[in-house]
Amino acid sequence: MPTGTLLYAQSGGVTAVINATASGVIAEARARKVKVLAARNGILGALREELIDTSKEPAAAIRALAHTPGGAFGSCRVKLKSLEADRARYERLLAVLKAHDVRWFLYNGGNDSADTANKVSKLAAEFGYPLTCIGVPKTVDNDLAVTDCCPGFGSAAKYTAVSVRECALDVAAMAETSTKVFVYEAMGRHAGWLAAASGLAGKNADQAPHLILFPERPYDEADFLVQVRKVVARVGHCVVVASEGIQTADGRFVADAGGGKDSFGHTQLGGVASFLAGRVKDQLGLKVHWTLPDYLQRSARHIASRTDLEQALAVGKAAVQFALKGMNATMPVIKRVSDAPYRWKIEAAPLDRIANHEKKMPAGFIRKDGYGITAAARRYLEPLIRGEAPPPYGRDGIPDYVALKNSAVRRKLPAWKE
Amino acid sequence: MPTGTLLYAQSGGVTAVINATASGVIAEARARKVKVLAARNGILGALREELIDTSKEPAAAIRALAHTPGGAFGSCRVKLKSLEADRARYERLLAVLKAHDVRWFLYNGGNDSADTANKVSKLAAEFGYPLTCIGVPKTVDNDLAVTDCCPGFGSAAKYTAVSVRECALDVAAMAETSTKVFVYEAMGRHAGWLAAASGLAGKNADQAPHLILFPERPYDEADFLVQVRKVVARVGHCVVVASEGIQTADGRFVADAGGGKDSFGHTQLGGVASFLAGRVKDQLGLKVHWTLPDYLQRSARHIASRTDLEQALAVGKAAVQFALKGMNATMPVIKRVSDAPYRWKIEAAPLDRIANHEKKMPAGFIRKDGYGITAAARRYLEPLIRGEAPPPYGRDGIPDYVALKNSAVRRKLPAWKE
Repeated sequence: MPTGTLLYAQSGGVTAVINATASGVIAEARARKVKVLAARNGILGALREELIDTSKEPAAAIRALAHTPGGAFGSCRVKLKSLEADRARYERLLAVLKAHDVRWFLYNGGNDSADTANKVSKLAAEFGYPLTCIGVPKTVDNDLAVTDCCPGFGSAAKYTAVSVRECALDVAAMAETSTKVFVYEAMGRHAGWLAAASGLAGKNADQAPHLILFPERPYDEADFLVQVRKVVARVGHCVVVASEGIQTADGRFVADAGGGKDSFGHTQLGGVASFLAGRVKDQLGLKVHWTLPDYLQRSARHIASRTDLEQALAVGKAAVQFALKGMNATMPVIKRVSDAPYRWKIEAAPLDRIANHEKKMPAGFIRKDGYGITAAARRYLEPLIRGEAPPPYGRDGIPDYVALKNSAVRRKLPAWKE
Repeated sequence: MPTGTLLYAQSGGVTAVINATASGVIAEARARKVKVLAARNGILGALREELIDTSKEPAAAIRALAHTPGGAFGSCRVKLKSLEADRARYERLLAVLKAHDVRWFLYNGGNDSADTANKVSKLAAEFGYPLTCIGVPKTVDNDLAVTDCCPGFGSAAKYTAVSVRECALDVAAMAETSTKVFVYEAMGRHAGWLAAASGLAGKNADQAPHLILFPERPYDEADFLVQVRKVVARVGHCVVVASEGIQTADGRFVADAGGGKDSFGHTQLGGVASFLAGRVKDQLGLKVHWTLPDYLQRSARHIASRTDLEQALAVGKAAVQFALKGMNATMPVIKRVSDAPYRWKIEAAPLDRIANHEKKMPAGFIRKDGYGITAAARRYLEPLIRGEAPPPYGRDGIPDYVALKNSAVRRKLPAWKE
């Protein structure tokens, strides 16, 4: 039985399956008799010494984490800077880890979190404190380097493809006398992965989505409006999926154009779909509806992808195994073995290769005309949304999501002030 | 074997289960050897003599309609006026029905459609043409008179409750350093049924949704902002569900305040959630996110309520039975027999009692403070979202929704011009 404690923390935007990773971590650690603490609200809880004793949770609650969206211990948007610039915070972090005999630190997040885990491991080495730091991948943005895909993305991708298929059937039925153009805004500030996933909803050019707008391609309004008009003429209606991060050729975010102040000086929160819908209405005079799913797309555990769930559990389990083997400054990543049949396995990748890198969509995933996905994109994306993994439902018709006790661990250090 | 043809048409906004009603209609008619035509794009197809021969569809396709959202034959937003004002259209309608030997006309929609079916039946009587007209209930707005609830509402209500539960878990995890207030815009221009359904997501005042804004209560901005601040202070975050139809005390739609033109003269499509989010940001300085699910909420067959599906099938089946019994100018409605256990049955109601009436939410369903639902509302709403009825999924991870052939029936009349 290894001595010491394992600390697990969640970071950044949560997903439908980040708690499945937590479930994988805790179940694997329990099987190996390792005590798991969790930081409340991510790295902030570690700095504040707000720790949670996961041993107070019954096994059923840990299993139920695998079907519960959100972040069960709380997450945070706090990015630590360089070791020099943020020295005091890193040292405090190390002090908290030491005080609770933490020998394994698992940080579940994106590339910022990989960077933090990497830096903590460097500082521990500098201080001669024996600590194994593991980054655990998570992000709906699918923009982590090295790993073939990111847990969280597949479920958001499935939500996107299914929702677009469904609302397209609605629009098709109404188009003759009502809505002719529908605009769906997908998350993705820098990379169009989720917008691309919507392409799985249709099998040919006449099936929705008819036009996808990627942040990787400049938004050309005149051409966009021509395309919309053409699709409406050909199909009778047009479903557009736009990435929130689309930009004009001169690098301005289209979303920012849609905001501003109204005539009363009130803030107008626009967004891309709202803006594009307005342009279609003004310039083409077509009836338009639009949707901004926002957090719904990343928290929709009820429509999670089974592939995604299995990968989220697997990276959690592997993270504990890597930690106990002392594989410091690594991340369990997903390696695609084959497309058809889809096969994958977990490998270890050094955090140095992941921290602060961003994976863009390959250019070969976007159709030449810029408004759709290629066969290569389909081969990559389709397995990631495959399979269903519905949560259990209560008698009340709502999924039976678990709320943990989140029992606080007694503090050992003085309170921390920035 | 009855002689003559049955004509079925879909009307108004489609739902996740209106095709289940169509499935019920066609299956029941087939069992009784009655030929079913469907009008393309609702009443418009009947006027234009654009009819579809449903006998060309295999039994499997008719069964698959029960799990396919949208409107399989097309719907429309066309309201016929009084018999006097729209005489030419009613007479054309009758001519088309006669030409195709239609003896039973089933119109699947809301109270406008009930009114149309009622008027067609009166005109047929006037002309001595033997026709049985049946209204078949459908609307996510749940605002039809007489019937206890409307097919389509339960599934949209389930979508709403589940989505609010899920995004609330996301917000709770992020609130310490990021989004503190989340605003969800529910459909409901005149009645707050769907907003009320979101109340099922939480069991107590600290569980989301923390504040519901109903069109039945005037929107008081000062008080609303006080409430948001209080909830954030107490819970750490605040989830607001707002009905698209909320109005200020002087009767202005809040949604209209959020729109207008930006400084470039571009149309700003705002909506209620966007507007409220802007107010929270400006007045309280809190980080806010918002969602506008729009059509997603009424087309999400993947999260349909089993109760709703069963009722949608049942009204379709009953409509055929009523038709063949010659129960002219009636609608099969849902009669609640008991709350617990939830029991219901189908009854016949005269269209006169339904046409052009609108059912508001009972005052006793809204909490005294105006921001939540009562126990009576829960007793009414909860059975309607109970049970799951997932569609079959393809190997591609997307529900296997059916596309019908929709074979056109040969025209017998000259083309129709308004």
